Amino acid sequence: MNGVLDMMDRIQILQQNLQSNEIDGALIVSAIDVYYYSGTRQNALLWVPASGDPYLLVKKSFSRAFQESFLANVEPLKSLKELQKYIGQAKKIGLTLDVLPAQTYFYYQKLLPECIFQDISTLVREQRSIKSSAELEIMRKSASILCQIFKEVPDFLRPGVREIDLAAEFEYRARKAGHEGLIRLRAFNQELHSGHVLAGKNAAFPSFFDGPVGGKGLSAPYPQGPSRDVVQLNVPIVFDFVCVYEGYMVDMTRIFCLGDLDNKLKQAFNAALEIQNTLVQNLKPGAVSGQLFDQACSIAEKYGLQDNFMGYKEEQARFVGHGVGLELDELPVIALGVKNALLANQTIALEPKFIFPELGVVGIENTYLVTEQGGEKLTALDDVIFYL
Amino acid sequence: MNGVLDMMDRIQILQQNLQSNEIDGALIVSAIDVYYYSGTRQNALLWVPASGDPYLLVKKSFSRAFQESFLANVEPLKSLKELQKYIGQAKKIGLTLDVLPAQTYFYYQKLLPECIFQDISTLVREQRSIKSSAELEIMRKSASILCQIFKEVPDFLRPGVREIDLAAEFEYRARKAGHEGLIRLRAFNQELHSGHVLAGKNAAFPSFFDGPVGGKGLSAPYPQGPSRDVVQLNVPIVFDFVCVYEGYMVDMTRIFCLGDLDNKLKQAFNAALEIQNTLVQNLKPGAVSGQLFDQACSIAEKYGLQDNFMGYKEEQARFVGHGVGLELDELPVIALGVKNALLANQTIALEPKFIFPELGVVGIENTYLVTEQGGEKLTALDDVIFYL
Repeated sequence: MNGVLDMMDRIQILQQNLQSNEIDGALIVSAIDVYYYSGTRQNALLWVPASGDPYLLVKKSFSRAFQESFLANVEPLKSLKELQKYIGQAKKIGLTLDVLPAQTYFYYQKLLPECIFQDISTLVREQRSIKSSAELEIMRKSASILCQIFKEVPDFLRPGVREIDLAAEFEYRARKAGHEGLIRLRAFNQELHSGHVLAGKNAAFPSFFDGPVGGKGLSAPYPQGPSRDVVQLNVPIVFDFVCVYEGYMVDMTRIFCLGDLDNKLKQAFNAALEIQNTLVQNLKPGAVSGQLFDQACSIAEKYGLQDNFMGYKEEQARFVGHGVGLELDELPVIALGVKNALLANQTIALEPKFIFPELGVVGIENTYLVTEQGGEKLTALDDVIFYL
Repeated sequence: MNGVLDMMDRIQILQQNLQSNEIDGALIVSAIDVYYYSGTRQNALLWVPASGDPYLLVKKSFSRAFQESFLANVEPLKSLKELQKYIGQAKKIGLTLDVLPAQTYFYYQKLLPECIFQDISTLVREQRSIKSSAELEIMRKSASILCQIFKEVPDFLRPGVREIDLAAEFEYRARKAGHEGLIRLRAFNQELHSGHVLAGKNAAFPSFFDGPVGGKGLSAPYPQGPSRDVVQLNVPIVFDFVCVYEGYMVDMTRIFCLGDLDNKLKQAFNAALEIQNTLVQNLKPGAVSGQLFDQACSIAEKYGLQDNFMGYKEEQARFVGHGVGLELDELPVIALGVKNALLANQTIALEPKFIFPELGVVGIENTYLVTEQGGEKLTALDDVIFYL
């Protein structure tokens, strides 16, 4: 599909959603949402009326936004005071209040005293969760870069190296292969640099990160990811990495080992595979997220591993998969109690993992496309533990 | 100074500021502010009453926050509904509305219907801008790592390499030396991955980034930083990098060149040095930021370079320096019209740069400490163009 046509569709779908929610127009404020609807990630606001032409209002850089965007109306915005002119008679305005700072919200309220603001975070995030063929093509490329770097791990994983050395080696190769580096997360206070290399017990370190695995990190202000510890023999070494290519992310995890693993860990890895393979069969439009999570928990329980699934005991995360795309924490979330049904062409990182405080972490993560036939794997690498 | 004592002082200073602003207490919500006041960057809220003991209320990970924080009262927060219990009779509550998402703000409003919220963003940011001796010690270490990597540039800057290769090499060495990777920025929609390597014209590419230099980048969704272009001979190659060590950043820029540069660029580099050296003499408590910026502009004008200073013509940024510390965009800002006076022990990256659309960018950046004797340079590397 042609990229520009694809992007014009996005505006039309947003307009339909605005109309059916009786919202007069959306003021798109988050840079990555602006990119999604306009084709440029300059510093700009995008005004999308429920019907009629959108306006891209650019703070910096105008010349570049003008060149990059496929929209017809790209104009410089010298001051937010000019906003009223574009918004005209619209009264009910949609804003993504999940990311807009309160300070800016109040400033908009002051500038547009006649307007009522409505939260359209979920509406935008749901639209973005469904990927077009153009987006999928990019994600497949992102996945192929990431798989390639995973295949190179045996070239640099050696006894005596530190976790941070392994992360540096992985990041170095990924950057040279086109990884854009910065990992965009939508949730307030969540953050991640490239990914995790965590060996043995360090992988089981609890963390602020909204995931099953966090790591020890380098310091208290950066308490996540690789540490300066040397990786040991006969422990699981978790490589959980993200590649960003043309803005789109894929996420995957494989376990490597210098030597051999405890049978308990091998069995837990098999449980993770069983969870993955069961869920993948059901990764179809209409499947209910919460039910998929329950399925995963049942399998964990069957193996007697319910206390180790997605965290240890009180540190457990209550999800097993998350949407990926322009952000790492997209919809849908395969989590406890979520009643939403999956939609065709959503892209989901499934990551069943088991955490053993004394031994480390085993599990698997691949990025899938939701199809009528079940999950289609985008991250084409063997689902095995790599023993070196 | 002992780190823990240092952090206790921070709480006391915040409490004094709350009292003098007649605010009953601060609910600290941003992870890095929570770290600053509590010693842990887990997922937590910090309640600091105007007088009395603060409470750290931890969402995830409690066990780790309990271990990391120096505060006496560290408690798990199962639900935000428990907040009222801690806030008690306090009515006027300070929040950093510059970063708190509007959605969360409205949720707090619902949970605490009796409370009035007041923006304390500037109060917190101003306190954080003044560094203790413990913080400065960390920043000196961060600077020494960064300078070391700059010294290694001649080892990997060769004809035929691409900008992205140079970035990968720099990042690789920095990571192995302890660079924590993720660069924290406070401003909405601003972001940066490690730094910039930009050669020739590419450095003059306009960008969304709130800085003089942005670069071409790898794609429209990541339109900043290094590109896949091969660096040419006889052009200025800008290395603008940040090191994060124990959470604290320093920022510096040097120009490298394979061959020789146009005299116009050499003269502009001298102008940048003159601006730096003039401003450094005045980097004293009491100096007014806007006047320092005006001084910089006067020197640019003296050289006939007013259209090239900090951006080209309509793309010009109106600042020449920014605070650095736990975030890259801290206070103070040395910018047009800013009436604030500098304070002792603020840390500032000064970055006078000249942009020539057809030739590239020259300039310099160092991180300084504001002292009674003027700016003390933390980034100890020669202020020269490195010809290879």
